[in-house]
Amino acid sequence: MSTPPEDLPPLAFRAVVRPEDIEDVQSLVRATGFFSDEEVSIATELVEQRLAKGPASGYEFIFTEQGGSLIGYTCYGRVPLTRSSFDLYWIVVAPTMQGMGVGRRLLAETERAVVRTGGTTLYAETSSRDQYAPTRSFYRASGYSVAAELSDFYAPGDSKIVFVKRLA
Amino acid sequence: MSTPPEDLPPLAFRAVVRPEDIEDVQSLVRATGFFSDEEVSIATELVEQRLAKGPASGYEFIFTEQGGSLIGYTCYGRVPLTRSSFDLYWIVVAPTMQGMGVGRRLLAETERAVVRTGGTTLYAETSSRDQYAPTRSFYRASGYSVAAELSDFYAPGDSKIVFVKRLA
Repeated sequence: MSTPPEDLPPLAFRAVVRPEDIEDVQSLVRATGFFSDEEVSIATELVEQRLAKGPASGYEFIFTEQGGSLIGYTCYGRVPLTRSSFDLYWIVVAPTMQGMGVGRRLLAETERAVVRTGGTTLYAETSSRDQYAPTRSFYRASGYSVAAELSDFYAPGDSKIVFVKRLA
Repeated sequence: MSTPPEDLPPLAFRAVVRPEDIEDVQSLVRATGFFSDEEVSIATELVEQRLAKGPASGYEFIFTEQGGSLIGYTCYGRVPLTRSSFDLYWIVVAPTMQGMGVGRRLLAETERAVVRTGGTTLYAETSSRDQYAPTRSFYRASGYSVAAELSDFYAPGDSKIVFVKRLA
């Protein structure tokens, strides 16, 4: 039985996006075994759009590494046409690093970054499927509440749950 | 007092996107006096993305013209990561042609197009502001119901109302 190390050193965060993040994000998202091919493509495409268009892409990132390897990241951004609402588009932690608080720290760092750029609200959308029960628990434990539920949104029996946290 | 002509001839619809639609959509959206500069930019950008990437852009259009001029259009598409949920991103009718059923016919044509491509559900997001009361009435009269309301989404006091219609 393996015990997650409780003494995970403080994480360093990086907001600058580099060309090698395209491949690293693709590998990381795929390695979780959690996401569909379409999801892997979209996650990768957001990195590409950020590199191509810069801040105008609307996509911001926070990466964290250990030993030179990407172990987790978030992708977020202001929702177009809103004054200060932000969406958490992606939060991914390497399978070997899950359960150690990496996601919690990445989310907290993301919330701080949102507030720094004038954001007041962070939304996170997820699925009602059993597979996402830990994700939903993670958001609840992080202070998020359910703002909306769109039934059969992703597919029959697979609803969209919109979580929200007021940051201001 | 002007009376809207009740004998508006049948409208012809066009789904093919042409380069001149960029400027025509920009002019049309701006001419309504209804949308912000950011909204005009986004509406225009979706046409550009469609022209640049084709169907892979995820944006489909239905245009309608009279006398060679664009008098209305919709922009819609499958919501990424969903099996058969579609979003109505834009529906715009020229100010001189409003109140004549152009919007109703454009929406009906859009719903038919969504069903033809396997869509089962069409979502339309709008604002809770007074300015959008006619828009909300339009969706209700067209068979849409409120699926969710995200308070203060666009700005304090300006919520997002998500309308939905099951098409299947």
